[in-house]
Amino acid sequence: MAKKRNIIVGQSGGPTAVINSSLAGVYKTAKEHGFDTVYGMLHGVQGLLDEQYVDLDTQIHSDLDIELLKRTPSAFLGSCRFKMPEIQDKPEIYEKLFQILEKLEIEVFIYIGGNDSMDTIKQLSDYAALKGYSQKFMGVPKTIDNDLAITDHTPGFGSAAKYIAVSTKEVIRDALGLSYNKENITILEIMGRNAGWLTGAAALAKTEECPGPDLIYLPELTFDMDKFLAKVQELLKKQKNVVIAVSEGIKLADGRYVCELSGGGEYVDAFGHKQLQGTAAYLAQFLSAKLGCKTRGIEFSTLQRCASHMASRTDIDEAFMVGGAAVKAADQGDTGKMVVIERVSDEPYTSGAGIYDVHQIANNEKVVPREWVNEEGDYVTQEFIDYVKPLIQGDYAPFMVNGLPQHLVVKTGNTEK
Amino acid sequence: MAKKRNIIVGQSGGPTAVINSSLAGVYKTAKEHGFDTVYGMLHGVQGLLDEQYVDLDTQIHSDLDIELLKRTPSAFLGSCRFKMPEIQDKPEIYEKLFQILEKLEIEVFIYIGGNDSMDTIKQLSDYAALKGYSQKFMGVPKTIDNDLAITDHTPGFGSAAKYIAVSTKEVIRDALGLSYNKENITILEIMGRNAGWLTGAAALAKTEECPGPDLIYLPELTFDMDKFLAKVQELLKKQKNVVIAVSEGIKLADGRYVCELSGGGEYVDAFGHKQLQGTAAYLAQFLSAKLGCKTRGIEFSTLQRCASHMASRTDIDEAFMVGGAAVKAADQGDTGKMVVIERVSDEPYTSGAGIYDVHQIANNEKVVPREWVNEEGDYVTQEFIDYVKPLIQGDYAPFMVNGLPQHLVVKTGNTEK
Repeated sequence: MAKKRNIIVGQSGGPTAVINSSLAGVYKTAKEHGFDTVYGMLHGVQGLLDEQYVDLDTQIHSDLDIELLKRTPSAFLGSCRFKMPEIQDKPEIYEKLFQILEKLEIEVFIYIGGNDSMDTIKQLSDYAALKGYSQKFMGVPKTIDNDLAITDHTPGFGSAAKYIAVSTKEVIRDALGLSYNKENITILEIMGRNAGWLTGAAALAKTEECPGPDLIYLPELTFDMDKFLAKVQELLKKQKNVVIAVSEGIKLADGRYVCELSGGGEYVDAFGHKQLQGTAAYLAQFLSAKLGCKTRGIEFSTLQRCASHMASRTDIDEAFMVGGAAVKAADQGDTGKMVVIERVSDEPYTSGAGIYDVHQIANNEKVVPREWVNEEGDYVTQEFIDYVKPLIQGDYAPFMVNGLPQHLVVKTGNTEK
Repeated sequence: MAKKRNIIVGQSGGPTAVINSSLAGVYKTAKEHGFDTVYGMLHGVQGLLDEQYVDLDTQIHSDLDIELLKRTPSAFLGSCRFKMPEIQDKPEIYEKLFQILEKLEIEVFIYIGGNDSMDTIKQLSDYAALKGYSQKFMGVPKTIDNDLAITDHTPGFGSAAKYIAVSTKEVIRDALGLSYNKENITILEIMGRNAGWLTGAAALAKTEECPGPDLIYLPELTFDMDKFLAKVQELLKKQKNVVIAVSEGIKLADGRYVCELSGGGEYVDAFGHKQLQGTAAYLAQFLSAKLGCKTRGIEFSTLQRCASHMASRTDIDEAFMVGGAAVKAADQGDTGKMVVIERVSDEPYTSGAGIYDVHQIANNEKVVPREWVNEEGDYVTQEFIDYVKPLIQGDYAPFMVNGLPQHLVVKTGNTEK
């Protein structure tokens, strides 16, 4: 009997609106390339170590299911925030994992995730090289934060940016409709701990019929409370209504997060990252106390990464493409690499998939370049806007059932060990 | 020269995703019924007292504009939170307003708003009767809170309910994708100070592929922190992931709002209502401290009333209908009345417009009946779900321009005094 050609795919880290489109791309391309079984790890490497996985043929039965998967937010297979230890610290974890891969006759291992997940790909491919295992390891980028190096942008970013732009536009309309002869300040809190890509995307709300936000503060630059207050006071001299977009990760010169000033920001996740919340609420309170006017803080919160009903078609298509490209590359013998998106042209916007050594990518955070922020440090430049705009274009209409978008959901039971 | 038949329409109170569909209904029906000029008050009665208004013919130029207006959130004309004083307290304000109406040769005055706006209609029609003015005054209901009496439901409620159900479903998917072997609690904070209609709508997220929220707490019932904690602990014995929907207005037995426990809820608006915020954040902190697990509070905030990209077609159509019905009723001589929605049948769902004396409506808040909440007080019943479900059905695809929904925006300048 010929050796099976099996493939296994997992999802890791904070989910996005399109991470499942990459999964769909992996599945469909693997089938087209003659792989036998396409396994899905349940909850990534962490679940795999508990031998939690499914045969994706038991989950996806038709092209309609593929389309539904592309429209399903969050990690279909379940995600994890599991950090692989250093090889020398816990070799037994690596050995256990490779025994499972050997048992399942896995030829290709694909991991869809962000910086930490690309680190996992690096370590697993290093371990395979060290021990002479034949599996190939490929990374598929994913993160709403757009903070991965080398790739022009990350799948998941465009949809989150679109959700932020749409919601910012709607909130500005709401605020403008309400304010008459009274000052009204709205502060929008947007995700992105160290990278301001998503916060800057609020600028896209500026269109022919919408003024857009008035001020945008990215986490890349030091936040100065006094300068901020002065700027808002200056704006209030000429307008009643002020809308401000801030990153959850803005920090003072002394290194403290603004959200820590109100006692928030204490939770630390498995990767040692502080969970940030409360920046908008704190600044709203601060301005209300200083200026005596109505203020409101709005956190876009989890919605910005799971609102697949407003996902970008460009993003869904690119997420599918990079999933497929990872399978093709591994099939051609690549390992220890990540698929990247290469921007081919701006007008019309076109992009393709490239392949890059994961050793040069892992844990290098890509932040917004200083020259894409204005001199004052309170708005993004036209270059920034031109970069993001193509990524929010187009839609996939949700499949509406009884008034709500339908999702594809994993069915475990007999299919799961 | 024959006397002009002019009509004026205004919008008041917190906006909704479909308040402009009612405006479109007023405009289109007024034109069909042979009214000459359709004026729009800018920022309601407050703006009108400053002689701020537009001729809507300068704003709406085509059927395409009408369709765009139906897809535009917030108050196109601008809203206000202006409470008419008692007639005996400030008769000069009434006299000033009626002088403006006389000057503009207004025959019909239509006000689109909630409880407080219906009170304005009552007082203006009373004053007209008292002083012998001939204008007719009609109210068009509007509020996401669904707390107006007599009408089966209010325009604006269905779209907010749909946004809440869609977002709840997406957040639950996100939470389920993340939690593996770790407890994870999500608390959703939903608008509705005294009436739990919107909070209850989170139950609609329960579908064949989504478990829906686990607990729902409405403001109609006293909130007990100890019972709440016990209930969550009980749930965590059988599941890792718990999602809870709470009203911003839940109160303890001693009358304090839960959000006041964290120092929130201080802002008081022009109608004397406390602005509530911070309930979910407080409960998330509370549970995290008691249970030591990951918690996250999410406020749907302003988005639930302005997300016209996810509005319900049923709601947009009914909002249009009630706007038109107000014009027709006034044209037939009605005054001091509000249009109500009458549910004709459930399957298929059909509804019609009725007319009701505004004296019997104003300031009677309609809350969720006790029998539509389970005995434990932590979930809505099937009757509640059956009532709301038809109201979230159908969509109007947004008009997308450069990746974002386009809105119709008032153009002032020469058209405005």
